[in-house]
Amino acid sequence: MALRRCPMATADRIEETEKSVASPGKQPRTARGRETMRRLLDAAAKEFGERGFHEASISGITRRAGTALGSFYTYFDSKEAIFSALVKDMSEGVAKAAAAGMAADASGVEREREALAAFLGFARQNKEIYRIIDEAEFADPASYRDHYEGAANRIAARLDAAVENGDIAPGDNEVRAWAIMGMNVFLGLRFGVWDDTRPVDDITGAVAALLGDGLGC
Amino acid sequence: MALRRCPMATADRIEETEKSVASPGKQPRTARGRETMRRLLDAAAKEFGERGFHEASISGITRRAGTALGSFYTYFDSKEAIFSALVKDMSEGVAKAAAAGMAADASGVEREREALAAFLGFARQNKEIYRIIDEAEFADPASYRDHYEGAANRIAARLDAAVENGDIAPGDNEVRAWAIMGMNVFLGLRFGVWDDTRPVDDITGAVAALLGDGLGC
Repeated sequence: MALRRCPMATADRIEETEKSVASPGKQPRTARGRETMRRLLDAAAKEFGERGFHEASISGITRRAGTALGSFYTYFDSKEAIFSALVKDMSEGVAKAAAAGMAADASGVEREREALAAFLGFARQNKEIYRIIDEAEFADPASYRDHYEGAANRIAARLDAAVENGDIAPGDNEVRAWAIMGMNVFLGLRFGVWDDTRPVDDITGAVAALLGDGLGC
Repeated sequence: MALRRCPMATADRIEETEKSVASPGKQPRTARGRETMRRLLDAAAKEFGERGFHEASISGITRRAGTALGSFYTYFDSKEAIFSALVKDMSEGVAKAAAAGMAADASGVEREREALAAFLGFARQNKEIYRIIDEAEFADPASYRDHYEGAANRIAARLDAAVENGDIAPGDNEVRAWAIMGMNVFLGLRFGVWDDTRPVDDITGAVAALLGDGLGC
């Protein structure tokens, strides 16, 4: 399966950004504003990813983004605000990468295989995501929890639909969803961030076999 | 299956502690010394778990342990040193809880079910473990990586043995091990730390079904 390397076109990503993550009352109103905000978020991913939340600074973000300090405050109230915005933005990025990677007619095990392939691709290209999401456990616990609960709910909804279609056996889809999410997160850490030399198909093939037939003989 | 609530008798835990985690040249030589070091580690788990690495202090640890400040330096060189020691100690605690929870003759899916049951029990009783291990990603990255690589290696070794015995089908046991570890970590977060009201058997039953037969019909 070909990996989608760009889960969303830039224009779509900018559009999406506008809707969701600026501080209250600070949504950009122009295409140029949306572009600046997107640049700030991408710069924030690098700054927080490399320096960590405590060491990261607003001036470090604007320097990386090539914007004036004032531009930062046009869209975000504080370092905390852009960090929360970034966690939400990455969460949406993961969701969209998975959605873009799944064929419309795939269901059950095949759909989970495609979602994992998309996630591994996303993790390999956004290696800072682990550091940022994991640091949210400390810097912004509500966003951390939202991120994982959101992902588990999406997986559970896919499994519910697959049961409905008769593509998988009925079962405890909440537990299954947290199990599958955990698999994906740790496979992404091991085979995406720490070492990305193994072909994605190796990983997803082994997982599809596990989800398809279990470990049994 | 009854959960082992105390994976090791205290004397064994103290014995084990002596071997592994004091700063170089600072291993306790007496039973009393081993007890003090154990008290310091348990106090450190509370201090780091509640306050986080940056806010935690050596005096906070000795106050919780009821020891003099000098006792701390008898065994540990620094806050960093006891944090690393604690991550290693918790890593060993997880390994021992899993080992104690697995029947000697269990293999394959049943063994993984028992390991998960033991881990959920451990997580419910040591809720600070997530915060501490996860903070190691930032405060002590080498220990963080050792923790997960060690756990994945243990699972892979169990799977290798189960394939050898003919209890499970041959497959990519490295990928399977990281997948199973990820499942366990996230199920422990969701059903151990965040909400521990669901019976452990519900969770392990659903996972055993998944590992036994996959999602298929």
